[in-house]
Amino acid sequence: MKEKVTVSNDTICAVSTPPGTGGIAVVRVSGPEAITVCDRIWHGRRLAEAVSHTAHLGRISDADGERLDEAVATVFRGPRSFTGEDVVELSVHGSVYIQRELINALCEAGARLAERGEFTRRAFAAGRFDLAQAEAVADVIAADTKASHRLAMSQMRGDFSAELQRLHDGLLELVSLLELELDFSEEDVEFASRQHLLELATEIKGTVGRLARSFRTGDAIKRGVSVAIVGETNAGKSTLLNRLLRDEKAIVSDVHGTTRDIIEDTVDIDGVCFRFIDTAGLRETTDSIESQGIERAIRRMKSARIVLWVLDAGRPDNVERTSRDVIGNLSDDQTLVAVVNKTDAADPGSVCDRLGRLGCGNIVKLAAAKGEGVEELERKLVEISGAADIRATDVIVTNARHHRALVDAEASISRAIDGINASLSGDFIAQDLRETLHHLSTITGTITTDTILQNIFENFCIGK
Amino acid sequence: MKEKVTVSNDTICAVSTPPGTGGIAVVRVSGPEAITVCDRIWHGRRLAEAVSHTAHLGRISDADGERLDEAVATVFRGPRSFTGEDVVELSVHGSVYIQRELINALCEAGARLAERGEFTRRAFAAGRFDLAQAEAVADVIAADTKASHRLAMSQMRGDFSAELQRLHDGLLELVSLLELELDFSEEDVEFASRQHLLELATEIKGTVGRLARSFRTGDAIKRGVSVAIVGETNAGKSTLLNRLLRDEKAIVSDVHGTTRDIIEDTVDIDGVCFRFIDTAGLRETTDSIESQGIERAIRRMKSARIVLWVLDAGRPDNVERTSRDVIGNLSDDQTLVAVVNKTDAADPGSVCDRLGRLGCGNIVKLAAAKGEGVEELERKLVEISGAADIRATDVIVTNARHHRALVDAEASISRAIDGINASLSGDFIAQDLRETLHHLSTITGTITTDTILQNIFENFCIGK
Repeated sequence: MKEKVTVSNDTICAVSTPPGTGGIAVVRVSGPEAITVCDRIWHGRRLAEAVSHTAHLGRISDADGERLDEAVATVFRGPRSFTGEDVVELSVHGSVYIQRELINALCEAGARLAERGEFTRRAFAAGRFDLAQAEAVADVIAADTKASHRLAMSQMRGDFSAELQRLHDGLLELVSLLELELDFSEEDVEFASRQHLLELATEIKGTVGRLARSFRTGDAIKRGVSVAIVGETNAGKSTLLNRLLRDEKAIVSDVHGTTRDIIEDTVDIDGVCFRFIDTAGLRETTDSIESQGIERAIRRMKSARIVLWVLDAGRPDNVERTSRDVIGNLSDDQTLVAVVNKTDAADPGSVCDRLGRLGCGNIVKLAAAKGEGVEELERKLVEISGAADIRATDVIVTNARHHRALVDAEASISRAIDGINASLSGDFIAQDLRETLHHLSTITGTITTDTILQNIFENFCIGK
Repeated sequence: MKEKVTVSNDTICAVSTPPGTGGIAVVRVSGPEAITVCDRIWHGRRLAEAVSHTAHLGRISDADGERLDEAVATVFRGPRSFTGEDVVELSVHGSVYIQRELINALCEAGARLAERGEFTRRAFAAGRFDLAQAEAVADVIAADTKASHRLAMSQMRGDFSAELQRLHDGLLELVSLLELELDFSEEDVEFASRQHLLELATEIKGTVGRLARSFRTGDAIKRGVSVAIVGETNAGKSTLLNRLLRDEKAIVSDVHGTTRDIIEDTVDIDGVCFRFIDTAGLRETTDSIESQGIERAIRRMKSARIVLWVLDAGRPDNVERTSRDVIGNLSDDQTLVAVVNKTDAADPGSVCDRLGRLGCGNIVKLAAAKGEGVEELERKLVEISGAADIRATDVIVTNARHHRALVDAEASISRAIDGINASLSGDFIAQDLRETLHHLSTITGTITTDTILQNIFENFCIGK
């Protein structure tokens, strides 16, 4: 790529702790002048003389030279710091006034306000970690369940990067073999046995494909597994949703067709985030507002990862009719769970039989109003989410940018394999392999541009 | 006082940074076991071996022993710490998940969640500062203007405490003189000349009284100076408020009696916080809702520190009638500013003459719709607030508890002075002086109880 990557090395500052008032707030200063800038507003032992990784009590003054606060300054000298540059962390009382005035004072003293993610971007520029790891920093901060936290931590730790490195090494070996062959092309030798090339390329394709496909699970865990609750009116969808959400968000009534708006909320079940989508009841209706609701319900159902089809145990005759809307609109990506509700009022046997004949494998019987069977449903949801299957050693892709690069890489390595099979000349195959390498390199950032970096870091918070 | 003061010395922990998501969050651990507890979840160089005031990079695990985050641990060994105890500050990624799990892990490892203000309470218990300074910590965190910040910093620094110490020393001298006299009472000597006692006591009373009276300014600066905007309907009160607030909060219309609800907002003028209260127009009305609004306007006017009486320059005939509602309801505590508005449309001379005859001293002429003269009004408001008069060396009382104690102290020292003047015997006078001492000692906390401490610290945030 022609576009160059800009590395700025002036001195930046920002509040790194969450916005608002608290006991303490931490302002981070990074850059070649970090210590000098801080010393200009610092009263106490000179920070320029401080040993790295030491904390000092002192006072700071505001831009007018007036005493602003008592503070603890911790000095980290580069390269042994987060950014790799000299860093000072100023811990002050967490008033909004002090935070604002301290940033003003530091800017007066020669620093400038950091951009979003600029500390992390500098750490990446300094080679402290690669781009996939840098992106994981934002994911770690945003993660709010055990599963999403675990995935983000794994990526930040470099598990994904190590896997990419192995792919990179394998691809380089392939390319080297082919290029050596090209150098001696006039002699018509074949350094790389086509069979050996095919095996290596197929193995790489397998790994790339597995990583690309893991995004489905990774994305669901990161953003929440979407679960649409659909079914005939009055089957107890809203009651079930309330049980799952443990509050009274959905309006429940005995009048058919109560839930016209799509209600959505998230809940953490066993460390996995689920986004539940309540929908209007699926039934023939002449009410135009309600039929719009049903259309919307089907549209939303199509976007969900899991579809909970709620049925009334006492109304077996409705199974086939409703199945048209539900099973008829299901895609291969989706998992259907049939929930036979109201088992406290009727025998679910007949409904279950009919579901069996329709080929429905996942059936959960429960009584939502009494809360019976809801835990079993929750276990089922966690099982389907795939979160439980993730072993600590698995690399799961959670980032859409990485997914796109992997899909592109899979396409080019496939072309290379086709080329080998078609006995194309080595330079064609090498071209596809270099393209595969390129796509993978954009993930770790060994190949990158200002535009890519800007897109990535503009999603960070200021101060990180 | 009989009630004892409980000092707990188990190990406590809390998130000290503002609640929510951010780049980093800091969890503070304090107590005799602080370092041991942290070492139980810490992977890296053992903190038990760390020198005080040093920062260490490592990893922390959650309550299940799973890796939770990378972290920087800064170790402060007592008594060289905020609380005077061993303290570890753990700086982690600022996700809500990590913060919650880290607190869980620390509690599993032997710490307990700190109560509100418990770190500061321990610092007080360890004699790191007195109670007035401890209370100032909360004020420093809450201060959102230059003036309120300056007052809180002064108190936290100990300026008020030093003033109290001087009073304390003076009172002790008086009491000692009198008690010495009582020891020799049979010999009928008078160690303390009554004239000398009177001079000392009067000086002390002067200082106590000045401090007590400073609360009026201190409280206004701390909580915002309340300014009621009153006047005849359609005089331009809401337009003026909008100018002062620099936004469109108040609804302005040409129909008389638009502003029925009390609108309140704050604005920072030259570092002083003003709370503006817009009120319904004062006029004869038969509309019952509006007349309720007028009653409420007068009630709110009575609670304000400053009353802005807005008049229309073009309607001099209304001055006397409106003055009944305004001047008639004014108390000695309040300052009246007459604002003659719409000077762009009419000559304000006639209105000003009438105001002069009513004894109105503070008159500001302006055209709110054009913004002319508003700055002069703002200067006037800052002047009246008293904030500008506060010299850096002045001690201003901002705390209602301190104010009550000072009022009580002033009453008892006054009784002592009366006693001296009435030539009462030394033991009566000494009794009043000891009572004065007592009241002052409750401010600094040399005399205190669990109840007082609880009332004070329950207004702190957790983590401070």
